[in-house]
Amino acid sequence: MTASVQKVAVLGAGSWGTAFAKIVADTAAEQQTSVETVLWGRNPQSMQQCQQTRVNEKYFPGIVLPEKLQFTADLQEALSGADIVVLAIPAQSLRAQLEVAIPLSEPHAVFVSLAKGLEQGTRLRMSEVIADVLSKVHPQLSESETQSRIAVLSGPNLAKEIVAEQPTASVIAAHTDEIAQAIAKVCASSYFRPYTGTDIVGVEIGGLVKNVIALCVGMCDGLGYGDNSKASVMTRGLAEITRLALALGGEPATMSGLAGMGDLVATCSSPLSRNHTAGRHLAAGVSSRELGTVMTQTAESVKTAPVVVELASQHGIEMPICEAVTAVLADQLNIKDLAPQLLGRSLKNENSTRSL
Amino acid sequence: MTASVQKVAVLGAGSWGTAFAKIVADTAAEQQTSVETVLWGRNPQSMQQCQQTRVNEKYFPGIVLPEKLQFTADLQEALSGADIVVLAIPAQSLRAQLEVAIPLSEPHAVFVSLAKGLEQGTRLRMSEVIADVLSKVHPQLSESETQSRIAVLSGPNLAKEIVAEQPTASVIAAHTDEIAQAIAKVCASSYFRPYTGTDIVGVEIGGLVKNVIALCVGMCDGLGYGDNSKASVMTRGLAEITRLALALGGEPATMSGLAGMGDLVATCSSPLSRNHTAGRHLAAGVSSRELGTVMTQTAESVKTAPVVVELASQHGIEMPICEAVTAVLADQLNIKDLAPQLLGRSLKNENSTRSL
Repeated sequence: MTASVQKVAVLGAGSWGTAFAKIVADTAAEQQTSVETVLWGRNPQSMQQCQQTRVNEKYFPGIVLPEKLQFTADLQEALSGADIVVLAIPAQSLRAQLEVAIPLSEPHAVFVSLAKGLEQGTRLRMSEVIADVLSKVHPQLSESETQSRIAVLSGPNLAKEIVAEQPTASVIAAHTDEIAQAIAKVCASSYFRPYTGTDIVGVEIGGLVKNVIALCVGMCDGLGYGDNSKASVMTRGLAEITRLALALGGEPATMSGLAGMGDLVATCSSPLSRNHTAGRHLAAGVSSRELGTVMTQTAESVKTAPVVVELASQHGIEMPICEAVTAVLADQLNIKDLAPQLLGRSLKNENSTRSL
Repeated sequence: MTASVQKVAVLGAGSWGTAFAKIVADTAAEQQTSVETVLWGRNPQSMQQCQQTRVNEKYFPGIVLPEKLQFTADLQEALSGADIVVLAIPAQSLRAQLEVAIPLSEPHAVFVSLAKGLEQGTRLRMSEVIADVLSKVHPQLSESETQSRIAVLSGPNLAKEIVAEQPTASVIAAHTDEIAQAIAKVCASSYFRPYTGTDIVGVEIGGLVKNVIALCVGMCDGLGYGDNSKASVMTRGLAEITRLALALGGEPATMSGLAGMGDLVATCSSPLSRNHTAGRHLAAGVSSRELGTVMTQTAESVKTAPVVVELASQHGIEMPICEAVTAVLADQLNIKDLAPQLLGRSLKNENSTRSL
């Protein structure tokens, strides 16, 4: 991808997709570039309403979106001419969406995943799902050509704070730092700072496992535990996230950075987070099956947690917090018995392996 | 120190000293040992009142302290027979207190610092102050004999939550893991889990610099920033704490553990924290000189911040958040100009050195 990006298409008009489209359109306006930004959503009526009112009523009532941001429900229109395609699609729908979108995309388009999760069944990360579909649609592409069309973005990025233009930083990882830099240029607004790197695995694992830890912290909140306990769960949680990331080829520095610790802390600190909210509901006695009825937005971690445990087991990594959360979700552990699992009794050196 | 601890003296009847004395007394009661616990405070009247009512009215009104916990204002009585002397004394008063206490202590007593700070003037950590006074009072002790009488304890330990018996974990570091284990045994209550280690430097640097970062997070809170911004400050803050700790001989694992990340996250998350509160006052326009009049308890970071910057400079370490906080405290940076300092504008790789 050259530095001359002309158009960015954001697929998915949920809270993160809408917030990210705002960042890109604001960046173009602030830097007075001609970069065009299009937000694609599935529902023609709500996209038409967004185009007319410049407000996404469902997710951000009262927030006026940038003047130059375009809205469409026509996927071909969104993708035509787009140099960068941002995927703000739920993890379990990404493959089906890509199977339609990739054949309609420009042959040089770079796909940037904002999705956080592992595909159920295949246990693939989102970048791996993109690579899989890309190589099936374009079997002539070399491995390296495929990889150079994939990037991921993750960090302490609560969408509601971003649309309120709170100062925020994030990490973009791609096959080369040059690709990541080109993406960073189109989303570097006055309130959003993208850092760049090449550790795709670390950024993705940080972004997806933190949701499971946030679910646990939400449970702790719901059970009435204080900041000491929650900070301990976050700390031990980051340790197990890091063990998994390193086993898969990620880098330690990523895990102690914005896409690791930063995202974990923001998600766990915020009552705005869906996963945190889901944890509080579970602590209040709502069953995992009933969660869908009490929450309007998906808590991805409910689906991700068991897949994380499978992936960890496949690589011989112990993840006691993720295992406890999965057991609660599967009704195999009573939530009242969570505390003894999180604060065992034997006195030991802090750095022994299974030292939850 | 052998495993047969008979008596623990806690010096300092402030919030942390009182909470820690409760842990030790509860541990003895739960494990049915004969370990005696004495809490020493400077004020004879309030100690007498504590002994009669079993309540420390000033810090924990309404909390009934353990039946077997003894209170005294007589230092000799507290130290006589004490195998472990816990120092819950403000950092800048520790030396003067030790100069009186060490000559009255048992020749085998181990000193455990709960204090967080650097001594002004000397820039010494608390364990170094203890070593300095010990070697002056007992010049016959070898370096190794001196070191084996010093330990530190730090972690995500908000005192108000501990007295409420919220599940909490902490780290004890000593010259050998055996010494740390012996201390851990007397403070392993049902709600308090001590891990052990030997990284005294890492545990101390984590415990003291986190207060400066918490001051910054408190300022961010006061300025109306959200969880994204605060999580970014904590993440970049832990990175600079880690740089300093490693330069002084600390270990990376300590910094990503309970005494590093855990303590930082708990202190920064909690509106209970004094340093966080001090930051909010500063954001509201209170000057650093006026802080003492609006807060009843000391915010140690106000004194520690400039000393941390001196120490970092002496070792060639860049600590941009600590530098910004020090500049605000010295009236050299307007708090309104903090955000541009914390979210610079150049796009760069996340792991470059000065990448705040």
